[in-house]
Amino acid sequence: MITSSSNSQLKYIQQLAKKARLRREDKVFLVEGPRMFYEADKKQIQKAYFSQRFFETMEDSSVLEGISWEVVENSVFDKMSSTMTPQGVLCVMKQPSYCLEDLLKKEAPLLVFLENLQDPGNMGTIFRTAEGAGADGIIMTANCVDIYNPKTIRSTMGSIYRMPFICLQEEETQEVLKLLKTRGIVTCAAHLKGENAYDQEAYTQGTAFLIGNEGNGLTDQTAEAASLKVRIPMEGKLESLNASVAASILLYEAYRQRRNSRS
Amino acid sequence: MITSSSNSQLKYIQQLAKKARLRREDKVFLVEGPRMFYEADKKQIQKAYFSQRFFETMEDSSVLEGISWEVVENSVFDKMSSTMTPQGVLCVMKQPSYCLEDLLKKEAPLLVFLENLQDPGNMGTIFRTAEGAGADGIIMTANCVDIYNPKTIRSTMGSIYRMPFICLQEEETQEVLKLLKTRGIVTCAAHLKGENAYDQEAYTQGTAFLIGNEGNGLTDQTAEAASLKVRIPMEGKLESLNASVAASILLYEAYRQRRNSRS
Repeated sequence: MITSSSNSQLKYIQQLAKKARLRREDKVFLVEGPRMFYEADKKQIQKAYFSQRFFETMEDSSVLEGISWEVVENSVFDKMSSTMTPQGVLCVMKQPSYCLEDLLKKEAPLLVFLENLQDPGNMGTIFRTAEGAGADGIIMTANCVDIYNPKTIRSTMGSIYRMPFICLQEEETQEVLKLLKTRGIVTCAAHLKGENAYDQEAYTQGTAFLIGNEGNGLTDQTAEAASLKVRIPMEGKLESLNASVAASILLYEAYRQRRNSRS
Repeated sequence: MITSSSNSQLKYIQQLAKKARLRREDKVFLVEGPRMFYEADKKQIQKAYFSQRFFETMEDSSVLEGISWEVVENSVFDKMSSTMTPQGVLCVMKQPSYCLEDLLKKEAPLLVFLENLQDPGNMGTIFRTAEGAGADGIIMTANCVDIYNPKTIRSTMGSIYRMPFICLQEEETQEVLKLLKTRGIVTCAAHLKGENAYDQEAYTQGTAFLIGNEGNGLTDQTAEAASLKVRIPMEGKLESLNASVAASILLYEAYRQRRNSRS
């Protein structure tokens, strides 16, 4: 049992919560809470930590089989946790590793392409909504917020385990947009200058929705590279919608059309 | 010019940022940033504060006409601000005051009814999306997060100025749901047990979407009081969507139907 605040594992976890670079170098990330623990693929768990309190009330010890784990004194566990209300379980997880082809396996894939998205909550929410809408993967440009940021992970509500994703190098952005087109995928930009409203286009063939930065939208280069630009109509005096809201409206319109075409 | 950190106005503003009760008693709230200042109705501005830096670069002094304002030394202004990157302008605004009838003026109003919503970002995002979708107002139950929380205000992106809203007393919740029905408004709950998918119902008549708490959804009492329950279909293993995403999907479906029925 870990009983000391100066324990090296505690310090390592505190660093992992703060430093994207350390997470990247060690190819790991942190998840917190019982749900994220129970939903995890055991093979991905590098090590699980339980507070004494949580451990003593665990009903089914079979969840411990085949994983590396350790119990932590309650007060020390609270220091390990990066949430305001620690829930007694925290895991160091191995980062999954996908390639672009993993996202293109299905016949008419539904994808999200995120450019320079900065808000961890938006990023996580887009993962969650993408799973709900039956999307096949998420592509992120190099300047997006770290997907392994603890706030992002929390907002995914478990979708991080199930939604394939790739993080591009900076020089790959335009290359991948071209490649998607050659694979018959419509690259569809949500853009104020879109000619048609989003609900006047069909998304039943392979589709990648391009979503830009919260303050600045898509870069000109990426908007120009898109094979289709659509407007999301807006009443009132708004300049734009929240990035995760825009993504949700587009994804659920595609999902609506795909459900209707199946039935 | 305010030059001292012990100035009473500075202290008052720091308190306003933290204390919902003080905002309620004084019937004011805080907004920050040039955009929130320029978009504000001058009659609603109780007092505007500018950092020296911002004030010196202001091009059009006519914006100062008819309002009460004061310049604040840069370092003191930074203490006044509750954002990480102060943008040089901050206003104490008078709280608007709406009644239910203000939300029911139009023939087939589109409303959002929020029950026990806790996240300030979700609340603000729903205001923003509601404006985009042409909604006529937002009704909040007593246990919702304070609409005047600085984070909520920031997330509204100015919609707080334009979207009518009312905050109910605890005992009014069921009464107002009944009243909406007697006024011919469909009270539509997003609910996992909804019989039909949300896109199989019509929202062209008066509609109020009922959105529940982030963790627990709608209370049983409110879900039962709804005249219609709809499901938002979900693939994968999700238990639910983010509350502001669910609201966006419903509002934009209603807006889509209303645009189509007009054309």
